Amino acid sequence: MGRGEGAASGAETTVRVRYKDTDAMGICYYGNYLTYFEVGRVEYLRQKGLPMSWVDQRLHLPVVEASVKYHRPARLDDLLVVRAWIGAKRRASFEFRYEIRHAETQALVASGHTLHACQEVMTGKMVGIPEWLDERLTEDTAAPAG
Amino acid sequence: MGRGEGAASGAETTVRVRYKDTDAMGICYYGNYLTYFEVGRVEYLRQKGLPMSWVDQRLHLPVVEASVKYHRPARLDDLLVVRAWIGAKRRASFEFRYEIRHAETQALVASGHTLHACQEVMTGKMVGIPEWLDERLTEDTAAPAG
Amino acid sequence: MGRGEGAASGAETTVRVRYKDTDAMGICYYGNYLTYFEVGRVEYLRQKGLPMSWVDQRLHLPVVEASVKYHRPARLDDLLVVRAWIGAKRRASFEFRYEIRHAETQALVASGHTLHACQEVMTGKMVGIPEWLDERLTEDTAAPAG
Amino acid sequence: MGRGEGAASGAETTVRVRYKDTDAMGICYYGNYLTYFEVGRVEYLRQKGLPMSWVDQRLHLPVVEASVKYHRPARLDDLLVVRAWIGAKRRASFEFRYEIRHAETQALVASGHTLHACQEVMTGKMVGIPEWLDERLTEDTAAPAG
Repeated sequence: MGRGEGAASGAETTVRVRYKDTDAMGICYYGNYLTYFEVGRVEYLRQKGLPMSWVDQRLHLPVVEASVKYHRPARLDDLLVVRAWIGAKRRASFEFRYEIRHAETQALVASGHTLHACQEVMTGKMVGIPEWLDERLTEDTAAPAG
Repeated sequence: MGRGEGAASGAETTVRVRYKDTDAMGICYYGNYLTYFEVGRVEYLRQKGLPMSWVDQRLHLPVVEASVKYHRPARLDDLLVVRAWIGAKRRASFEFRYEIRHAETQALVASGHTLHACQEVMTGKMVGIPEWLDERLTEDTAAPAG
Repeated sequence: MGRGEGAASGAETTVRVRYKDTDAMGICYYGNYLTYFEVGRVEYLRQKGLPMSWVDQRLHLPVVEASVKYHRPARLDDLLVVRAWIGAKRRASFEFRYEIRHAETQALVASGHTLHACQEVMTGKMVGIPEWLDERLTEDTAAPAG
Repeated sequence: MGRGEGAASGAETTVRVRYKDTDAMGICYYGNYLTYFEVGRVEYLRQKGLPMSWVDQRLHLPVVEASVKYHRPARLDDLLVVRAWIGAKRRASFEFRYEIRHAETQALVASGHTLHACQEVMTGKMVGIPEWLDERLTEDTAAPAG
């Protein structure tokens, strides 16, 4: 139903729109979707056995670029489903893709992507995707959903 | 040098990176650049004689899409220059473009764009760019900077 | 076990510390606890049959004062339990009280309160606590927990 | 004039209310005042010769408790003056006090305090106020303003 056959391979989690997240237009502020994307990819990694608190001691995944398309507004107290999956993958960077929908109606609220590099926490050096991460991301690359 | 001849036609303002804006990686959180972009475009409109508190009573400018490229990190207490100018303009939507640089070194931190629609506050209807806004945006479209 | 016999009468919900919520000290930024308090009281009202999206159309509950005590830090990806219950109640204002604990260890992270007034959305007038709200808050006042 | 004779001894800076800072009630979200307090105390330290980027390498100043009184709302694009000064000082902790006013009318928007401990960055140990900080804070303690 519009989500593609690969939908099952990503990770899903929910966020609820807080007063803090709304703005004077009465809708969720546009910058918060990048936070919701973060919630989605952290959940993705957790479901692959990589809790963020563990990853964060070893590897930083700085965002190199990000984009969002805003399909319809979300409002105070709306429950949203955030789906995250892996898009393109290169030697030293990889892409998360996202879809955010209203939990009740499944109407599309926002979609987008983030491109990540890999930086060793100890040395600060940019590195290729380490194997322990790469093999978790691989399981998912067949998902052309969305 | 890299900012193009149109640089003078945009608006510039500064933001300082707050503790609130940093994250556990020790750098400015990636989502905050969309807030800095907001600061830039609000300043742009103010310099054109359109304070946001005035605009907000008449017209909402919901964001339809946004993108950011992250060139280098910004850190706690860094002073950043946000430059905003008008990119493409259509009948019912228009684009802001942005560049964020370290104030001291002028090194590029982030760049990106937002695409805006126009929505009447009274009726909630999507409308074409009203003339009072269009003529302010027009003054600037010659700026191919960045 | 340190939570008082009234613990059961409040509402509990969980929040997870996001990258967005951490700061360059590596811990959850102090201002975010007021957001977590919001999550707690919205959940409290939901459990009493008052979804915030419904309340927000009728009544605003502006915060008159707030306080937080920070007992120990929360870190990236920590799962926290937010408990909210009603404290003092007067004719036209009432108090929420909060406790935030680590979900796993139950160690106390933060506690505090917010004092709320009542403002009719239609008229903007400050009013007494309306009966539909008052009767929901009453059920809980016996809870001297924390 | 309600600000006390010591008003001059604190530090003043301004913040402007961003869309990001407003909420669906159309006013500045209550948690953001703790961020504005941060802006005030960072400016205080800067004016004493202690840029936060320098302090942050040596000493963390975790917040032990915080309180806010909300006197009147601030709205989109309001320019606010944040004044910060030192309140009580003990061997190992000290208090900032704050007042936030509308820049134009000087009407009081919010007031409050934060209590800070001192933690060495290198060792993570809680320590007494180091002399280099203490002597800067001392200059100000005569200020009984607010």
